[in-house]
Amino acid sequence: MPKTLHEIDVSLGERSYPILIGEGLLDDCPALLAHARGRQVAIVTNETVAPLFEPRLRRALAGAASALVTVALPDGEAHKDWPSLNRIFDALLADRFDRNCLIVALGGGVVGDMAGFAAATYQRGVDFVQVPTTLLAQVDSSVGGKTAINHPLGKNMIGAFHQPRLVLADVTTLRSLPQRELSAGLAEMLKHGAIADPAYLGELERDMAALLGCEPAPMAAAIARSCEIKAEVVAADEREADRRAILNFGHTFGHAIEAGMGYGAWLHGEAVGAGMIMAAELSRRLGMLDAAACGRLREAVASARLPVSAPRWPAERWLELMSVDKKAEQGTPKFVLLDGLGKAVVRKVPEAPLRETFEACAAGDA
Amino acid sequence: MPKTLHEIDVSLGERSYPILIGEGLLDDCPALLAHARGRQVAIVTNETVAPLFEPRLRRALAGAASALVTVALPDGEAHKDWPSLNRIFDALLADRFDRNCLIVALGGGVVGDMAGFAAATYQRGVDFVQVPTTLLAQVDSSVGGKTAINHPLGKNMIGAFHQPRLVLADVTTLRSLPQRELSAGLAEMLKHGAIADPAYLGELERDMAALLGCEPAPMAAAIARSCEIKAEVVAADEREADRRAILNFGHTFGHAIEAGMGYGAWLHGEAVGAGMIMAAELSRRLGMLDAAACGRLREAVASARLPVSAPRWPAERWLELMSVDKKAEQGTPKFVLLDGLGKAVVRKVPEAPLRETFEACAAGDA
Repeated sequence: MPKTLHEIDVSLGERSYPILIGEGLLDDCPALLAHARGRQVAIVTNETVAPLFEPRLRRALAGAASALVTVALPDGEAHKDWPSLNRIFDALLADRFDRNCLIVALGGGVVGDMAGFAAATYQRGVDFVQVPTTLLAQVDSSVGGKTAINHPLGKNMIGAFHQPRLVLADVTTLRSLPQRELSAGLAEMLKHGAIADPAYLGELERDMAALLGCEPAPMAAAIARSCEIKAEVVAADEREADRRAILNFGHTFGHAIEAGMGYGAWLHGEAVGAGMIMAAELSRRLGMLDAAACGRLREAVASARLPVSAPRWPAERWLELMSVDKKAEQGTPKFVLLDGLGKAVVRKVPEAPLRETFEACAAGDA
Repeated sequence: MPKTLHEIDVSLGERSYPILIGEGLLDDCPALLAHARGRQVAIVTNETVAPLFEPRLRRALAGAASALVTVALPDGEAHKDWPSLNRIFDALLADRFDRNCLIVALGGGVVGDMAGFAAATYQRGVDFVQVPTTLLAQVDSSVGGKTAINHPLGKNMIGAFHQPRLVLADVTTLRSLPQRELSAGLAEMLKHGAIADPAYLGELERDMAALLGCEPAPMAAAIARSCEIKAEVVAADEREADRRAILNFGHTFGHAIEAGMGYGAWLHGEAVGAGMIMAAELSRRLGMLDAAACGRLREAVASARLPVSAPRWPAERWLELMSVDKKAEQGTPKFVLLDGLGKAVVRKVPEAPLRETFEACAAGDA
């Protein structure tokens, strides 16, 4: 009996590709073998993920690839840098991989970003396939073609847009995830519902217990819908000129929380969870969202076991963290707001309601 | 009175751009100012070129750019590496350059490759303008969008295709070039004539003294025709799938000479000069080119003050340098050959005429 399998197509002209979501794709995926057949294949992963899944993927690829090498990078955002990236190049060149080789990213967002950037730049561009193993990577970083490494002066400052040929999201890999990382992925999924599809938001609310329990069928269905929403937005705006900005709902506040707490203290998804509540609260204060919708989003974030309160900081600190240049005539930066659930808009915002939002959402008050 | 100005358009759809060739463009170019106006601009150059031309370019840009920074990299192929590239990123980030910034490459091929790769990857891609100051860069590396840095295990192994918005070739900058570098540029120009346009080859032969003397009018006309030929080939095959390979005429032999002599002993253009004579000789031995055409090409290369004889090495050394895997069933690699002057073709070649060519073209015999 075939297990659940969803296919989402990301439509980007000649750079279009499918996302397959299901159970057991790591061991059995004809689409992956079709890409690997007769080619030099490099699995790029990290030291945490490798023992969990690399042997299975290697076994699946071994019969098809003409050569197969694994590069296990050190784990973590701190290693999303040039020395780690260069380990990929070292391995490819040591084994004389040519321009027709294939890079397979096996891991979370950091691995995907690095393997993708290596693929974008090795011999001026080779094919790559993403096998995301975290929920965040399955619903977010595997759609959109953004690749990058960090620079000491800024995150994701050096990178490229490079679309994968195929994305495989095997939901069984999520069982190995710590609870916090699962919740962090759910934050992005709630975001997709909030900005684009209230019915999907309702399904997430309804199925939250099953999702937290990693039940394959509802999880695969939800991931598919999230990928579909993100793919639609990206297809309309591949290079992030305008429309794609709505995917940053909750992120202006979220990034401030991440930066202010020190990167790594809050997971990105956790900061986005609280950030969405702040953005909803700001939308409410601007008369765009009613109190019921605002409360509903807050409940949904809480049910995903995400933080719902922001740190208690002075407004000046928030403004500084959000890089608000008060001297600039433009005033405050643009925010992604909700003009009702399911409809995201990008607006400049006066400072007064912003200051009220910091206060209203701070821990202890909310 | 307006000075000579040629414009060649490189047709690559939405990535199309013009190449302007003339006198004094460094000081006065409205097209450059139109790109720079109101933007953060970084001039990327090297320590040799900076004192010659950077103040002029800076003066021209100063009124237009909202911010202007210069990054002078250490000179030479040995510095075409990650640490140098990172100096560009350091400078851009230190001055908070955003995604709308403009990078201007001022120098030869190495500067263009590095500035171009920085532009391809800074914040996932920003605009750049090339101001090539060597003849080789004006006729070759500024057309085609190839950018790269070297890796200890291979040249140009890490890079991207990233087209400039504009190329400015100011022929007056060539007066500062050492004779050998001027001749090296002429080698690529002779190549353009040989593979695509016998009439242009004839013009180069006719004007060789004027070109060696850097006379502006004939030099600008010749550069324009070379850029036109290269642009036509690149437009037909931007990602180097097939047709673009004809630009490698003389390069299989040339690369072997560069590698065998140790990189830097022969300039790339010098190796290509001798390599073209070898490729012509091989074409003759395969019955594709007559002796007169072969001799004519040899005379043209000699008149550009380029070496016409190859090193005297055993055939096994040549084959090894050309990465011929004798165990492979395919036999010898593909060569770009001339099926008459002006018509380049890519063919596999049997080993016997190849061995004869090594012998026939070696220093002392030819």
